Amino acid sequence: MKAARFHGVKDIRIEEIPLPTTAAGLALIDVEWCGICGTDLHEYLAGPVLISPTNKPHALTGEHMPIVMGHEFCGRIRQLPDGYRGVLAVGQPVMVDPRIYCGICNTCNEISTNFCPKIGFLGLNGQGGGLAETAAVDVNMCYALPETVDLRLAALIEPLSVARHAVRVSGITDLSRIRVLILGGGPIGQAVALTLKNWGALEVIASEPADLRREQIKHLVDAVIDPRAQNVVAECKNLTCGSGIDLVFDCAGVLPAMNAAFDALKNRGIYVNVAVAWQSPPIIPLTAFMLKEITIKGTLTYEDEDFAAVVHDFSIGRFGNLESMVTARIGLDEVVDGGFERLICDKDRHIKILVIPRRHLLSL
Amino acid sequence: MKAARFHGVKDIRIEEIPLPTTAAGLALIDVEWCGICGTDLHEYLAGPVLISPTNKPHALTGEHMPIVMGHEFCGRIRQLPDGYRGVLAVGQPVMVDPRIYCGICNTCNEISTNFCPKIGFLGLNGQGGGLAETAAVDVNMCYALPETVDLRLAALIEPLSVARHAVRVSGITDLSRIRVLILGGGPIGQAVALTLKNWGALEVIASEPADLRREQIKHLVDAVIDPRAQNVVAECKNLTCGSGIDLVFDCAGVLPAMNAAFDALKNRGIYVNVAVAWQSPPIIPLTAFMLKEITIKGTLTYEDEDFAAVVHDFSIGRFGNLESMVTARIGLDEVVDGGFERLICDKDRHIKILVIPRRHLLSL
Repeated sequence: MKAARFHGVKDIRIEEIPLPTTAAGLALIDVEWCGICGTDLHEYLAGPVLISPTNKPHALTGEHMPIVMGHEFCGRIRQLPDGYRGVLAVGQPVMVDPRIYCGICNTCNEISTNFCPKIGFLGLNGQGGGLAETAAVDVNMCYALPETVDLRLAALIEPLSVARHAVRVSGITDLSRIRVLILGGGPIGQAVALTLKNWGALEVIASEPADLRREQIKHLVDAVIDPRAQNVVAECKNLTCGSGIDLVFDCAGVLPAMNAAFDALKNRGIYVNVAVAWQSPPIIPLTAFMLKEITIKGTLTYEDEDFAAVVHDFSIGRFGNLESMVTARIGLDEVVDGGFERLICDKDRHIKILVIPRRHLLSL
Repeated sequence: MKAARFHGVKDIRIEEIPLPTTAAGLALIDVEWCGICGTDLHEYLAGPVLISPTNKPHALTGEHMPIVMGHEFCGRIRQLPDGYRGVLAVGQPVMVDPRIYCGICNTCNEISTNFCPKIGFLGLNGQGGGLAETAAVDVNMCYALPETVDLRLAALIEPLSVARHAVRVSGITDLSRIRVLILGGGPIGQAVALTLKNWGALEVIASEPADLRREQIKHLVDAVIDPRAQNVVAECKNLTCGSGIDLVFDCAGVLPAMNAAFDALKNRGIYVNVAVAWQSPPIIPLTAFMLKEITIKGTLTYEDEDFAAVVHDFSIGRFGNLESMVTARIGLDEVVDGGFERLICDKDRHIKILVIPRRHLLSL
């Protein structure tokens, strides 16, 4: 089968590799759509970062570079593991939770699978990655989707799960009186906006410098700010009738935005960091942080319950039409130039690029 | 009367100034003991920082430099304001909450007096400072102390209130299963240790490089670490039987200590910053912060309820013998060389220096 494998910095190759086999507990998924994520770009530019290097196979999969990439993917069951007794059947559309955790340690059982010391990801640490015609996946990580669901958008369940988890991490369960500022209108910023609206946030403002992203997120929030042309703090004050911001989601990871957000926050406000790749180290804006007793929270991917809840919300149409988040659809052969390179070089004009690894096999 | 007034960097003068008058609502306090605080040192070395400069009188007091310093003080009522109908009487021992807030704005009434936009402090922004024979103080900020209380230690109620507030800000109300690491064994670190023990924390560990401070805080906690000779993370792991730290109070403000604390923290641990003067800007240790979903909290001084609760706890002897925290007692004439300079130049050998502004008048 065809697969896109990571061999090193700027070295992703489309290769012919053997079809994976159904080892114990693994199902084979014929991949329909796979998203390219910021983490993938980071690996492409500076990896292996999270990808298991040749000299250090992953603790759970035993696999290492070259790794089949892609962790945001949906598809259909091609083959179930021997002796499988669950409800999934061959042909069933599924979305894959790409996390790999042991499930048996104290951390998995008492705190969260998210903190498993052996945590890994499909597409980074082995088993099947989604940038391939077929992927081997723990059958218990396959979430059934109804046939009526649009598989052309289902891969977005992954970034939406990141967003849902970040909103949960804020610790605020009733958002009906909460005014929110989102820094960054990329895929995660847009996913956070969608989640906040579904959860009934009183007011959502997004700050984003790129025209296309601002234009896109405009439809998901109450107001947008262009931080290059406007004063974020003054605009937030103005838009909230002087009240200020209760909650910030940083999906940008740039210091000037962080500083402005701290100034826009109210006393005892909450700042949740969702950004992974910071352009420079995040320095706490000390004066605002102390004088306003601000809480700063870190968030990491998602947990089982986030994934399950987003699969449900997606299946019942709660996110509306997500099509505007997708700025290109490409085949596997185009994944480097039409995917990775485009997202890097033409950053301001792309949000999510989806890959169809089986385009040549399917009639989509 | 004699008073120590701030005229600029390294320019604190002992001067003869007029006795303050009892303006509306102000009582006169004959000061018995006044502590020198880290904030005072910061003003001495780099002020005016919080002190109201000559060209910008404080919004509530209308006063500016030269300012009578000192905000950790107790004494006895000398004169009550005209028409006073409360329970305080002349001669009554009192501890002073040195905060100056308006008490009538929305922030004071709906959020906290701590965030009053006009917040100020006695000793920094006018009215009476405690480094004087007599201080003019809002009568409602005078907390009555029983005659049986040791006034020689009562000034410590102020830093103990800072500590209590910091523990409250952590958000953890039941400390009985909580393992804590305190960074820094200075006055605030020791005050936090005393508070945690009173609140029933399961295990308290302190990390402090200076020998005297380590020796002192040893008696207040379960274990001490010398970060210059020991590995803080390994020691914390060891001392908690592998469990790790749930909660950190940073009373040090140095980056290596902060980094070690983040490594020592468990998943979803909480880091409370109590340090005011950071030696270099606090950079968030991003990997630990994200991978462990750590919460970072800022804390600022204290609120009415903290001060009232600490006055009560102090009055009933809940803090035990605080004498070990006091490393020198001096008269007002010695305040620069025997107080400020000594705390700066001989930092590792001093915790709290208390000043007796009326030594020449009293027979203590």
